[in-house]
Amino acid sequence: MASDRNLTFYHAVPSRSGTVHWMLQELGIAFDTKLLDLQGGAGQTPDYLALNPLGKVPTIVHGDTVVTEAAAICCYLADAFPEAGLAPALDDPIRGEYLRWLFFSPSTIEPAFIDRVRQYVAQDSSQNSYRDWDTLLAMLLDVVGKAEPWLLGQKFTTVDVVMGATIRFGCMFGILPKDPVFEAYIARIDARPAYQRAQEIDAPHFAAAMAGRS
Amino acid sequence: MASDRNLTFYHAVPSRSGTVHWMLQELGIAFDTKLLDLQGGAGQTPDYLALNPLGKVPTIVHGDTVVTEAAAICCYLADAFPEAGLAPALDDPIRGEYLRWLFFSPSTIEPAFIDRVRQYVAQDSSQNSYRDWDTLLAMLLDVVGKAEPWLLGQKFTTVDVVMGATIRFGCMFGILPKDPVFEAYIARIDARPAYQRAQEIDAPHFAAAMAGRS
Repeated sequence: MASDRNLTFYHAVPSRSGTVHWMLQELGIAFDTKLLDLQGGAGQTPDYLALNPLGKVPTIVHGDTVVTEAAAICCYLADAFPEAGLAPALDDPIRGEYLRWLFFSPSTIEPAFIDRVRQYVAQDSSQNSYRDWDTLLAMLLDVVGKAEPWLLGQKFTTVDVVMGATIRFGCMFGILPKDPVFEAYIARIDARPAYQRAQEIDAPHFAAAMAGRS
Repeated sequence: MASDRNLTFYHAVPSRSGTVHWMLQELGIAFDTKLLDLQGGAGQTPDYLALNPLGKVPTIVHGDTVVTEAAAICCYLADAFPEAGLAPALDDPIRGEYLRWLFFSPSTIEPAFIDRVRQYVAQDSSQNSYRDWDTLLAMLLDVVGKAEPWLLGQKFTTVDVVMGATIRFGCMFGILPKDPVFEAYIARIDARPAYQRAQEIDAPHFAAAMAGRS
């Protein structure tokens, strides 16, 4: 059983691994956290590079299984702990849409955010995974606007963790516009006990990281 | 059963949907192909935008299920047609590593390729999903160099389709260096009957597209 194996979560605050921390809290499972000081070089030790050759977080080690990439970890955990009900079963007709959005978030939304921050506009938008910013933004407003209340319908799923964290990040840093559609969805995320628990646990580390930068 | 439902594949040549065409040939399943003339605007019709709001290919419609994003489609199909043996089962210890590479390819390798083509070098590489080019390249050489003969071991899996197509693309367009490690792996791909079948079927469309551009 998945719960028989030790689960170690390599985390840094603030970083993309916050998404996985939220996911772990949603699952309500036991895990050990290893908090890495990335700025102090903790991502570059030989032991850590053996797990994650790019020296990034998050990484999880579950028994003998090593998983990297936030969305891949969330996808893996949801299937490994099906009792939490965060993933449709393989034979559920919604499984295809579920995977669609899990992949869409890191491979299409995130590259669009990065170009937006860099103020990069491609001359030939057909080469962009996200087409162009206006088309992507209209699509996101449509998809999030249809959430009732979650992206796949009445049931909260891993898609809300992965895409929700990305949308929340985009709004927090002003990449996405202040729009009531996004704000209402983020308010639903913020009201979740698991999200609040992850934030509370990370708060002192966040404060320490911010103090170190000032 | 997954095979009871009609499967329609929206394709364009040349494009990223070549990866899904290869995957479908590996699965050996029945499907209808809708070839879209993207330059002629076939991706921008209301009917197609209802399936894929970004107007991109690939898209598949399997019964009532719509899936977009090449890696998501391949991940979905491998689980929907388990008899092809291209995905480890959910309780297989290798499932985590399998998902890791399926996500890594479009969210980490592809953004690195795009930056490389744009000749963009980030001042702060900690913001890149792929860290920096040299680190990513060393990692790819290590991972592909250890393939025996496939990325997850002796068994060919969807990871070889998704990451294999990406590595092949990178070498073909000179983004990745000519290295015997990559060349040997690509030669193994090229020798697969399913890969050859996809290439043969697409060849006249490729020739027509190239003629239209000249």
